[in-house]
Parts: sequence; C-alpha cells; structure tokens
Amino acid sequence: MTERIGPAPGYRRIATEEAFIPPELHRIYVDLATSGGIDDPGFISLMGYYLTSTSERARNVSERLQDLGERRLADMDAAGIDMQILSLTSPGAQVLKPDLAVAMARLANDRVADAVRRHPTRFAGMIAIAPQNPAEAVKEIERGATRLGLKGIMINSHTQGEYLDNPKFWPIFEAAEALRLPVYLHPNTPPAKMIQPFLEAGLDGAIYGFAVETGLHMLRIVTQGVFDRFPNLTMVVGHLGEALPFWLFRLDYMHRGTVMSKRYDFMKPLKKKVSDYLRENFYYTTSGMPWEPAITFTQSVIGMDRVMYAMDYPYQYVPEEVLAQDALPISDADKKRFFQTLAEDVFRL
Amino acid sequence: MTERIGPAPGYRRIATEEAFIPPELHRIYVDLATSGGIDDPGFISLMGYYLTSTSERARNVSERLQDLGERRLADMDAAGIDMQILSLTSPGAQVLKPDLAVAMARLANDRVADAVRRHPTRFAGMIAIAPQNPAEAVKEIERGATRLGLKGIMINSHTQGEYLDNPKFWPIFEAAEALRLPVYLHPNTPPAKMIQPFLEAGLDGAIYGFAVETGLHMLRIVTQGVFDRFPNLTMVVGHLGEALPFWLFRLDYMHRGTVMSKRYDFMKPLKKKVSDYLRENFYYTTSGMPWEPAITFTQSVIGMDRVMYAMDYPYQYVPEEVLAQDALPISDADKKRFFQTLAEDVFRL
Repeated sequence: MTERIGPAPGYRRIATEEAFIPPELHRIYVDLATSGGIDDPGFISLMGYYLTSTSERARNVSERLQDLGERRLADMDAAGIDMQILSLTSPGAQVLKPDLAVAMARLANDRVADAVRRHPTRFAGMIAIAPQNPAEAVKEIERGATRLGLKGIMINSHTQGEYLDNPKFWPIFEAAEALRLPVYLHPNTPPAKMIQPFLEAGLDGAIYGFAVETGLHMLRIVTQGVFDRFPNLTMVVGHLGEALPFWLFRLDYMHRGTVMSKRYDFMKPLKKKVSDYLRENFYYTTSGMPWEPAITFTQSVIGMDRVMYAMDYPYQYVPEEVLAQDALPISDADKKRFFQTLAEDVFRL
Repeated sequence: MTERIGPAPGYRRIATEEAFIPPELHRIYVDLATSGGIDDPGFISLMGYYLTSTSERARNVSERLQDLGERRLADMDAAGIDMQILSLTSPGAQVLKPDLAVAMARLANDRVADAVRRHPTRFAGMIAIAPQNPAEAVKEIERGATRLGLKGIMINSHTQGEYLDNPKFWPIFEAAEALRLPVYLHPNTPPAKMIQPFLEAGLDGAIYGFAVETGLHMLRIVTQGVFDRFPNLTMVVGHLGEALPFWLFRLDYMHRGTVMSKRYDFMKPLKKKVSDYLRENFYYTTSGMPWEPAITFTQSVIGMDRVMYAMDYPYQYVPEEVLAQDALPISDADKKRFFQTLAEDVFRL
C-alpha cells in the first residue's frame, strides 16, 4: 500500500464481495485441508495454501479474514471504503458434512449480523447457507432475512460437485425470489471431476479455474431454465461476470443452434435468449477486475446500470485499485451509481 | 443464407480457420463415435452428433467437411471468400492410436496439398500432425512445409488428455519455430478428466467447453515457459483468443502473486508478463465471433495488428457474418490488414 485514500467526492464507496471467516470454521478448514479428510483437491489446493502457508500473502489473508472489527475497519479507512457487504469466504459451508454445514452457516450468519449491529454504517451482510440440505437452507434464508436483517445470499458455486440447476436446489431460488434477496454466485475451485487439468498446471484457483467453474455454473442455471421458472430472481456475479459478457453473441448463436438440433434432449428452448438473462437477471461486480477496458466493455454490452464496485477484501486488498476505478471514464452520475446507489438498490440497503 | 456477397472493395477476404476431413477419416470417426471404442466422452458427444445425426445442421456440416472442390468453392463464392486456409477438422488425428494417427495426418496433408495444387489462388493449407508420436510429428511438419508447401500447423488442443506444455511435445514447437510455421491451437472438447460438469448440461462443445479447454491450454503453454524457450514461436488462436483478452489484467496479477508465494513449485517466474506473451506470441482470429464489441475490444487490448478474419467453415457458414465484419468501425487500411495482409504475413502466403 502506498498511500491513504480519502473519501470520494459525491459518493460513498460500497464494496460488495468482501470475505470473512469465523475462527471456528477457520480451524475446521485447517483440519480438513491438512488431514486429507476431504475428497476435494481444489479445497486442499486453495485452503491448504491460504490457511497453512507461511508466505506473507497467505498470512495476511488468513488473519484479515478472521477480523470483523478494528483491523478491518482500519483497512477500509485506509482504502477509502465506506461500507463492506460481508460474506462468508468461499467455499463457505458447502464443503462440510450436512449437519456441520448447517451449524456453521448459522454461526457465520450470527457473527455477521453481530458485526452489522456494532457498525451499521460500515457493514452489511449476506446469508451463508448449506445447499446440501435445501430445506434447512430455506429456513436459514428466512431467518437471515427476517430476524438478522441480512441482505443477500452467498453461494460459492458447486456444492460437492453439484450445481444449482439441479431442481433439488430450486427451493433456495424460490425463497430468494419471494424474499427479494439477490443470490451472489461466488467462485469455488472446480470439483474433483473437472479440476485435474487445471491443478496439474497451477491454474485451478483465481488465475483461471475460478472463472471457468463459475461461468459454467451461470450457464447451467440459465440454460436449464431457472429464470423462466423464477423470472424475478436476481443474481450477482463477480469478476465482471467471469468473462461471459465477452461471449454474449456466441452463447446466443450456439444455444439457438443446439436447441434446434435437439442434440441434447435435456436442453430445452428458453423463453428468452441466453444474453437476455445475462442482461436482465444478473448484476456484475468488479471484484478482482479493476481494469478499465474490461469494465467499460461490460458496461457497454451488459448495461451501465448492471455493473457495480467490489474489492474482494482481503484477497485483493490493493487500495490503488480504488483510485483506478474512481478514474473510470464515466459521468459523475454513473460513478455514483457504480460505487453506491446500485448496491443500495440491489441489496436494498 | 439470404444474399450473395460480392468481392470486397480494396481487399481479398482470406478465411483462416476452415475445416475439412478426408472421407477415409470420416468413416473412422463414425466407427469410433458409434462403437464405443474410444474413451473420450467429448468426441462421442461432438462427432457422434455431427457425423451421425440426421438433423439438417449436422448433415450440412458432415457433407461440406468432405468436399475440397466445387461445392466448397461455390460456398466461398456465395459468401465472398477469396481464399480459405484449410485445416483438418478437430480433433484431427489426435484421438487415434499412434500408428493410425500418423497415417491419417499424412493422408490429410496429401489431400490438402492436392487441393492447393488444383486451386492455388483459392486454397492454402495447414499441416495436420499426430502429437502422440512427437518424432513422427516433426518429420511430418518438415515434409508438410518443404515438400507440400503447407503454411502452418494445426493442433486441436489436448491429445488424449495431454497438453503441449509437457516437454515431450516441445520438439514440435522447435520445428515450428525453426521452419517459421505458426501453430494454430484449435479447440477440442475437454478431456475425460474434465468434461463431466460440462457434458451433463450440454455445454461441452462450442457453446462453452471449447473455449475453456483452449484457454486453459494457452495458459498452460504460457505459464510453463514455452515462449521463454522458443521466443520466436508464433501461435494463432480462434474465437478471439477464447476470452483471454478479457482477462489480461487478472492473469498478470494472479500469476505474479502465485509465483511470488511459491504456492506451486512447478510455477516458475517467467521472463515477461503473461499478457506480454498473449500480445507478442499469439495472433487472434474471429472464427465464430463476428461480433463488433468483442472484436474491437480485442483489437484495442491486444493490438490492431494481431486480429484477423476467420469464418469457421462449414460449422459456422453464415455469409451475413462476412458483411458484419466488412462493416467494422476501423479504417480501410486496418480492414485490409484484418481480412488479407495479416494472414498473408503470419502464414507467409
């Protein structure tokens, strides 16, 4: 960090993909990653690194993840961040056995709600769930929204190799739509049945595997008709949509051709084009992508009103990246939308 | 097709990713895809569809792939294509047992050389190889370049789950660099150890799996130091670089952090940034991506001088897409570069 960043002129900076972990779950992760007691090579690769490495980067991330108080607030102040929308770090409770997962999601939600109560102008929070028990996930969504005042649902891509286009998970979407809670689809490392060619080259994590896994998940949700069934469901994705904005034309072309050809009997016609869902049901954050060409490209092909700021604290705590986004070549009104009011609207802050 | 497209004013249109298959290999593919005699679910999904489906799209593709004469020339005339640079369709000889693969690559190269001899102003060709036998592949590259007059090397991503960053394949790069032949890295479906989450949703092919598989392959080649070892090696990729231009910032950021952290002992420092190799060692074609926003984005972040035209005949034979690219918002000089002279330079036509 080279400088202290002051308040922005004319807008509050709300960061929308900001991670934490309760120390209890941190200990469980360390045990899982080091004991071999989990059949998830991506988890072992990622969390084995972040939680047990002695490198400066890993230690910094590990310590900051566990803080929901003064250290985090000081980092936010130094980087000019007015508010963080907190979420349980990937892969959340999704790697745990169902009963433990349900308990850990509840614990995480109690902790984030407590942080919001202590610092209501600086923090908002999303609901962690255990999708491996959809009925309990729905209960926790209802508790999080009505009793804890949380503002969205965080899901870290696949749950032990299963994807949300599987109808057994659709009660989660039904609850989200009914309660008007956006579902943030955050990356996870690819599942065991996909990760090998990434892992053997060190490309399984944020450098590439995250994007592929999450882009695939978005497309599965769209093409299996989730938004035809839940047209008012809103999702949020980071990293500027995992590059799907780049593919809009090709996705429409290939989806239309594939459906027409009846190549897969489970790929049915949709009410709208793939790109329509990507423009009308998804919002996009700039987590990890503080790069003007990709931001303005996404704004132009998706819509100025669909792209908002995120930092990805503490994984990418780079205050200079805030200044880079302050300097985006967009109007003052669009900048206030980008940093503040779009997040306020989407998460109903 | 709605209209006949005339010659362009001021440039020849050279299409650079245009596929064919010898009827002998077509029959082998049909046998493989229908007999279950191959452990490659992506091949069975893709070629089982294109070569055996009775849908109009599949029949059209299957018939056109096998023609290197009048039908193809008539299609080129109707679409205003002056020249096709021909290549053996994906996955080429790469799915076959080694001896058969070597023989089929030779057969394909003899056929394409014959087509070029018959129509030297309309066709150029690339060399098919069997990477599963690197020594024979090198011999065939030398034969293709010196005796057959072919202009590049076509490799269809992974070879039975193996990637070109494996040093056993590096004699192929050495020969390509020595003979100044560009290596065109074309998509294949993901290998068995990766494809399952794509396949179960019908997303294994051109709609998404192709892009992921090829983007991963590009990154493996870059990050394992192929271009530090062969700095004058030139590669060509389709589909506007499989979206890697969208990721330039993040690839550099994450690669730098990963190398510094020593998270993977096999991920070594490189002489240059990942984005430098993507800008200096790769050329990009518009196959399947006739969409102005993505083309101009790629031109702006990679370089106007690195992006050239391709159609992806016969898979995406849509003459209107030629007109869409005639209408790109670039200067006449840049358009001539895009459609004609860049291909002439890269392939040394």
